[in-house]
Amino acid sequence: MFIGAQVSLYPMTSDFIDVIFSGLEALTPYKSDLRIETDDMSTLMVGAPGPLLDAIRDLFAAAARRPEHVTMHVTLSRGCPGEPDDPSCHCETLTRAQDLSLAERQVLAREAVADAPDLGVEIDLQFSLYVLGQDRHMDEIYGCIDFLKASGTFLKSKNFCTRLRGDAGAVFETLRQAFLRFGPAEGHVTIDMTASANSPSPRA
Amino acid sequence: MFIGAQVSLYPMTSDFIDVIFSGLEALTPYKSDLRIETDDMSTLMVGAPGPLLDAIRDLFAAAARRPEHVTMHVTLSRGCPGEPDDPSCHCETLTRAQDLSLAERQVLAREAVADAPDLGVEIDLQFSLYVLGQDRHMDEIYGCIDFLKASGTFLKSKNFCTRLRGDAGAVFETLRQAFLRFGPAEGHVTIDMTASANSPSPRA
Repeated sequence: MFIGAQVSLYPMTSDFIDVIFSGLEALTPYKSDLRIETDDMSTLMVGAPGPLLDAIRDLFAAAARRPEHVTMHVTLSRGCPGEPDDPSCHCETLTRAQDLSLAERQVLAREAVADAPDLGVEIDLQFSLYVLGQDRHMDEIYGCIDFLKASGTFLKSKNFCTRLRGDAGAVFETLRQAFLRFGPAEGHVTIDMTASANSPSPRA
Repeated sequence: MFIGAQVSLYPMTSDFIDVIFSGLEALTPYKSDLRIETDDMSTLMVGAPGPLLDAIRDLFAAAARRPEHVTMHVTLSRGCPGEPDDPSCHCETLTRAQDLSLAERQVLAREAVADAPDLGVEIDLQFSLYVLGQDRHMDEIYGCIDFLKASGTFLKSKNFCTRLRGDAGAVFETLRQAFLRFGPAEGHVTIDMTASANSPSPRA
């Protein structure tokens, strides 16, 4: 299994280089658990979903604690058949999910969100979950949407994606649960996600 | 068939509101062909791939002609089983693609990129193509990657995505061809895409 993300932080300020570099300091605690490589468009992070989603969350929360409007785009992927197996990506949650029904996975996902840490930063996030390589991909998508609606972070359904709002701790835990507990444990699953904080637009 | 996109423009300047609003003016010629709805996170555009991709291209090209660093994120989708049929999304290229082999589609895709208009704006773009709801989804992905490598806009492969570079006309035509000619014509296909211009980072 190969698990990782391409991550880009977009601060809407002329001081964006400073915001990006100070945000990247939030990744320091995760450098021993993740492979991290930055180019001029995005930062690749490879590793298990525990440190991976924590690192993405802390990167965005650090930038969102500043006053400026900031957004982030993340492409998450697990199980892509074109990527090599990587032992550092091993995840017990995924392994155990193979024996559980959809209803059981929904309960565990809700419990994980309820137990998420409170980071004291409210954020908006929207994302699409893609379950690849199987005929009946929409069953798992609809099962995930049912979980999202009961997660406590659901804001609204949009065309092509679902909108969440809440504390960064609960919102990114919702994202991690969607990524890990829906779609086959050994399958190819991806997420296309954008987050936003401190937007001057009237709130949806 | 339902075809559309969620589009977000991210200018890395304190003057971002002005850049976004002047960028949105580039959409004016497309307002009769597309349904366009903006909320505080993204702009929904629904319609046929001709005006849809032209509108997305012109929006980004308008912003990229300014001096500031600007990025854009787009979630493209066609054929999502959860969306209603919409006659305004009808597309002859998709209909005809049903009778063509992978090799024939690759030739037509390359010809379309060669015929793309030159907009005089160089951009970077990276994207992931997802073919949903079928067992052998990677065959079409690998067929698309072969097209991309011969498109004239290919820069490099990255984990989870492919990186393009070139004039906005050719780059967005490459994206449209990937979206339309790979994956089943009546199937569910999505793209997760980010574009960038005027980045101060050392170039990849």
